[in-house]
Amino acid sequence: MVSQPRSWEVLRWFRLALQLKGSVVPAVLPRTLICGLFGVLISILHELGLPLELPAVVVFVPNVVLSLMLVFRTNTAYERFWEGRKAWGSLVNNVRNLARLIWVAIEEQQPGDREEKIRTLYLLPAFAVAMKQHLRQEFLPEEIQSLVSPQQLQRLKDLNHPPLQIAFWIGDYLQQQYETRRVEVYQLTIMVERLNNMVDALGACERILMTPMPLAYALHLKQLLLLYSLSLPFQMVQNLGWMTGLITGLVSFMLFGIEEIGIEIENPFGRDPNNLPLDAICRKMQHNIADLIHSNRLT
Amino acid sequence: MVSQPRSWEVLRWFRLALQLKGSVVPAVLPRTLICGLFGVLISILHELGLPLELPAVVVFVPNVVLSLMLVFRTNTAYERFWEGRKAWGSLVNNVRNLARLIWVAIEEQQPGDREEKIRTLYLLPAFAVAMKQHLRQEFLPEEIQSLVSPQQLQRLKDLNHPPLQIAFWIGDYLQQQYETRRVEVYQLTIMVERLNNMVDALGACERILMTPMPLAYALHLKQLLLLYSLSLPFQMVQNLGWMTGLITGLVSFMLFGIEEIGIEIENPFGRDPNNLPLDAICRKMQHNIADLIHSNRLT
Amino acid sequence: MVSQPRSWEVLRWFRLALQLKGSVVPAVLPRTLICGLFGVLISILHELGLPLELPAVVVFVPNVVLSLMLVFRTNTAYERFWEGRKAWGSLVNNVRNLARLIWVAIEEQQPGDREEKIRTLYLLPAFAVAMKQHLRQEFLPEEIQSLVSPQQLQRLKDLNHPPLQIAFWIGDYLQQQYETRRVEVYQLTIMVERLNNMVDALGACERILMTPMPLAYALHLKQLLLLYSLSLPFQMVQNLGWMTGLITGLVSFMLFGIEEIGIEIENPFGRDPNNLPLDAICRKMQHNIADLIHSNRLT
Amino acid sequence: MVSQPRSWEVLRWFRLALQLKGSVVPAVLPRTLICGLFGVLISILHELGLPLELPAVVVFVPNVVLSLMLVFRTNTAYERFWEGRKAWGSLVNNVRNLARLIWVAIEEQQPGDREEKIRTLYLLPAFAVAMKQHLRQEFLPEEIQSLVSPQQLQRLKDLNHPPLQIAFWIGDYLQQQYETRRVEVYQLTIMVERLNNMVDALGACERILMTPMPLAYALHLKQLLLLYSLSLPFQMVQNLGWMTGLITGLVSFMLFGIEEIGIEIENPFGRDPNNLPLDAICRKMQHNIADLIHSNRLT
Amino acid sequence: MVSQPRSWEVLRWFRLALQLKGSVVPAVLPRTLICGLFGVLISILHELGLPLELPAVVVFVPNVVLSLMLVFRTNTAYERFWEGRKAWGSLVNNVRNLARLIWVAIEEQQPGDREEKIRTLYLLPAFAVAMKQHLRQEFLPEEIQSLVSPQQLQRLKDLNHPPLQIAFWIGDYLQQQYETRRVEVYQLTIMVERLNNMVDALGACERILMTPMPLAYALHLKQLLLLYSLSLPFQMVQNLGWMTGLITGLVSFMLFGIEEIGIEIENPFGRDPNNLPLDAICRKMQHNIADLIHSNRLT
Repeated sequence: MVSQPRSWEVLRWFRLALQLKGSVVPAVLPRTLICGLFGVLISILHELGLPLELPAVVVFVPNVVLSLMLVFRTNTAYERFWEGRKAWGSLVNNVRNLARLIWVAIEEQQPGDREEKIRTLYLLPAFAVAMKQHLRQEFLPEEIQSLVSPQQLQRLKDLNHPPLQIAFWIGDYLQQQYETRRVEVYQLTIMVERLNNMVDALGACERILMTPMPLAYALHLKQLLLLYSLSLPFQMVQNLGWMTGLITGLVSFMLFGIEEIGIEIENPFGRDPNNLPLDAICRKMQHNIADLIHSNRLT
Repeated sequence: MVSQPRSWEVLRWFRLALQLKGSVVPAVLPRTLICGLFGVLISILHELGLPLELPAVVVFVPNVVLSLMLVFRTNTAYERFWEGRKAWGSLVNNVRNLARLIWVAIEEQQPGDREEKIRTLYLLPAFAVAMKQHLRQEFLPEEIQSLVSPQQLQRLKDLNHPPLQIAFWIGDYLQQQYETRRVEVYQLTIMVERLNNMVDALGACERILMTPMPLAYALHLKQLLLLYSLSLPFQMVQNLGWMTGLITGLVSFMLFGIEEIGIEIENPFGRDPNNLPLDAICRKMQHNIADLIHSNRLT
Repeated sequence: MVSQPRSWEVLRWFRLALQLKGSVVPAVLPRTLICGLFGVLISILHELGLPLELPAVVVFVPNVVLSLMLVFRTNTAYERFWEGRKAWGSLVNNVRNLARLIWVAIEEQQPGDREEKIRTLYLLPAFAVAMKQHLRQEFLPEEIQSLVSPQQLQRLKDLNHPPLQIAFWIGDYLQQQYETRRVEVYQLTIMVERLNNMVDALGACERILMTPMPLAYALHLKQLLLLYSLSLPFQMVQNLGWMTGLITGLVSFMLFGIEEIGIEIENPFGRDPNNLPLDAICRKMQHNIADLIHSNRLT
Repeated sequence: MVSQPRSWEVLRWFRLALQLKGSVVPAVLPRTLICGLFGVLISILHELGLPLELPAVVVFVPNVVLSLMLVFRTNTAYERFWEGRKAWGSLVNNVRNLARLIWVAIEEQQPGDREEKIRTLYLLPAFAVAMKQHLRQEFLPEEIQSLVSPQQLQRLKDLNHPPLQIAFWIGDYLQQQYETRRVEVYQLTIMVERLNNMVDALGACERILMTPMPLAYALHLKQLLLLYSLSLPFQMVQNLGWMTGLITGLVSFMLFGIEEIGIEIENPFGRDPNNLPLDAICRKMQHNIADLIHSNRLT
Repeated sequence: MVSQPRSWEVLRWFRLALQLKGSVVPAVLPRTLICGLFGVLISILHELGLPLELPAVVVFVPNVVLSLMLVFRTNTAYERFWEGRKAWGSLVNNVRNLARLIWVAIEEQQPGDREEKIRTLYLLPAFAVAMKQHLRQEFLPEEIQSLVSPQQLQRLKDLNHPPLQIAFWIGDYLQQQYETRRVEVYQLTIMVERLNNMVDALGACERILMTPMPLAYALHLKQLLLLYSLSLPFQMVQNLGWMTGLITGLVSFMLFGIEEIGIEIENPFGRDPNNLPLDAICRKMQHNIADLIHSNRLT
């Protein structure tokens, strides 16, 4: 009944469960060790005869509340993660649609028009790259220089908010096409709406970045965790004796780990393995634009 | 009081509860057996007199947290499943509306116009089929060849992203109808918006496919599950003795099963009985298009 | 302090709590009886001296998980119920707005124009009725014949998907009004968008109907319920003795009832007292249309 | 450390906790007393020596399930409350925007135009008032007569659905302005969309009003509550003796109170202190309109 | 394995857990002390021999329900917090897009046009500042005077609702540009839609501000908390003796803290460290506008 692939799969399951890379184990180890040592201390004192028992049943409600808040905190962090992902998904969609609209609907009247159109199409992934860098509070010219002209790159270096400037250039190009009658006002409008959506996606990510969990919430959760971890040996020492330290360590590892997950995925725009794959998403947008241009050269 | 149909229904309920096909039983059996054997081992060691008891009450909080995280993980997976379903539902709606608009609002001026219109209408389910195949990382020409021309099929074979190319063809057709005054710019716009929505649905599915649960979350849940399963015999052995192995196996079956459901429905675009019925949805779209064309031939 | 109406209200509360009609009692009774009899059997075996106790504390985690999954399952079913309700609410809104727009904004140039307009207005509730019947997989001409012409009724009988055909007729009428300059293209567009929304509502309901809970989920929940119900007498028999059967029956009644609620409201388009009041909604739409026509005859 | 204002605040907290007005205490008192008396009865029977104990641990799962369902029911009711609030918020927004658009964008060509415009502006809060009364199934002419003309008031008295008629008048006015070239078709469209949104808000409130929780759900929750309340004295009598009645009463007060909250806020359109402040919202809209007209008389 | 930065991080974790500023500790201390003293009183009475024990297991369901309601209340408050944040995020997006559209699409025909355009651009952050002050029920001319003309400032001082007046001025400016043919009607419409969205964001914040949790809910939660806190010493005194006061204080601190978080973040528009950073958001908008004007002077 247990076929070969199945048994491999079970090995894979156990290997994943023990994998350190990308897990929260390294981050929570120090706290865990401190709690474990505190547990050892309490079991020594208990062995020396001090009355240190705390019946677990009397702390039932705070324990349930702590469990619920821990899980809620992780869920909320996950929702922020997923909301950030949606904003980037919306960016991908709007870049694809705007690119197709520009390519199809803007008339080429003069020799240089196609080149200008292509330059503008590359501004779309440039917006995404600049947005990624803005969210990471960095500006890396080498990643963006193949997508903009040298003068534009120079301009961007001096600005507080490069992506907004790129959105301005795209909007300016569209307006010029309209004023020189290369596109009708009605089609201009759809394109401008898509550009607005791109700026909306930028704003959504900035919102997630700038607004962490309310301070009172994060602090109170830490207080509850601390109180729980310090009370844990007292709840255990009567039953477990010298094992108190080990079990205290394991239990606090479980709980600190959950809090840590919440902290790690709350701001999903970094470079950790637990963050969104923004580099891959940006590259994919560039490929979509390049595909559009190269497969339809002769149309 | 128990009428005949009722008693049949109760049989049906029990048959479903014992059904293996489509259930997670085969997938989690190996892990379950390992945990059961571990339970047997512990009961042997306990019988030999080793002090191996762990009072369940001391692990109350991690147990509640594990339960909550397991159920939350399944809920999240279900939400992804349902979000994927919504994207496909939106695709169905947009295909229906766009098809009706093309059929009704684009004027036929010359003999070949109707044929070209029908060819374009078939590109709409072709988009859906290509999207399905793209999400499954495959390209099956036989499924798509009745919906596109042979030249188009040839083009699609060489591309990284066939659905985007089909969207481009539809957009290109619409633009041409506008430039040859077969449709007004205003009506063109509604159609282009519906086409944009189709590309949005594609992006939504790609987003679900490309962004699994954060790694730290999946790993920590596996760690909690493993710690729980390994601690289970210690919690039981004092009360259950030789039954420890059996009950450990049953309990771990319950929990591994829930984790497995989460894994199976997290990416809902495959061919499992637990995935979305994408083949049926694609066929339905083709029928809707065919119905539209055939019932209104003479209008 | 306990006023007369209050004491009546308390009676009403108890009467509701004991009401069978519309409740899940009849549906779950057979399963409940089986579990109760199994409980009696176990208490007999226990009385005969077999060691059949299972301490409840060792199954704490699966019990919590079962509780959470049961409630989650019901919540999900309720969300589907409410999503179906929203789709019908959106249909009501769009029918009202589209009716008002047609009545106000389409110019009547010739004697027969008003009659044709009224005929089209009646197609709006006809769409709703046809949608209701399509969701119930039936076609009842008598309910729809007062809203469409005899030829249209004949056409609908032969089709797989009557509501889509009615949407096509409405769209076709609107397009003709535009082509004969009875309405401007801009106003046409708002109307067409509202018609598209009606087709979207249809698609949303079809989506809910066609996509039940993932099979693995429904099966695993039944497995958990079965395992729990069968383990229940073992958890109780030591404490309850001959009462085991009664209490087992009551407890499994509670749980089966919750699962049954989920099953009953998951597909909310039927005729049960627990389904959406689709007949009343359809009648209300017809009244709104009739009111619109009759109160503004002379405008 | 405990400053004067803080200590006042603590008094305020306790006063709120003991406040009867607006709380559910009066509504649930009769049920609570019945349960308390039943508890007294059981403790008498127990004192007489009948074996009436029920170990609480065997009813763990139904207890958890009952807790979860109670809280879920309240949450769902709160979501309906909040959804109703959102619909009214959307109404406020659309009234404000539509009023500004009408005031700014409709050209005044003849002497009476301004008066007609102002009369129409007052139809916007009239729509809100009529919607409020329609949701409360009443029609109070005195509240609406300052906002509509006497003839309009007469018309409204005879209708089933006054708000829809007011929406019709507004739509009719807008269409006339367009036909007499006082507003361009494009701007007309934005206004009509805002009017459609107002009708959508009306539909959303009617949806909440007409669709209570599914009957099976409400009934099963009452059954669970009843079973729990009746089993409560049996769970307690061994430990509490003559205190059973008091504690049973207190516990059932807590639970009935939660169910009652759900019932009270489920339909949030009444006049209770726990309903939405619809009268205040309607007055605020009237003030906004009056402000708009009076501050910009001379523009 | 424990590197230097890691050990610093662990210190940082503990320092945060003990931080008072921004935490709810000061707010809940008085209530906590009262509960602790009550616990001491009960332990004295118990010591004197009164039978005051209450077995915790009999209050299992109300305890679970209290835990769930506490956490639900905090979640709901957090959702309001986040909804308020979304409204402000939407305001930022709409200000950015509207500013870019005004700058790019409105033609400058005469010498003073640019100055008037810039004055209007500054009305956008003025709207945000006025909205912030309106939500805080204050009017601070010094903060707004650099963004509006002196006459406008004078006007705003006399009004009930300054932000609506600013929206009116922006709408009026746009309408004038259209009437003097500086912008086409189509582009006007996109701008007006963005302005409408700004008014929608204002309405969303007012909705959150004006609609607290339903009174019955807030009161019943306080009642449950009070009953729980008063029953706590009775649940503990048998096991804990003289420690009852300390543990009662700690547990009630945990629970009051959670309720307090809900109260603090429910209305997120104040100046507390737990409120939204509205001042920073307003400043950022002003910088975006200044950047737009200064980087594109010569275009």
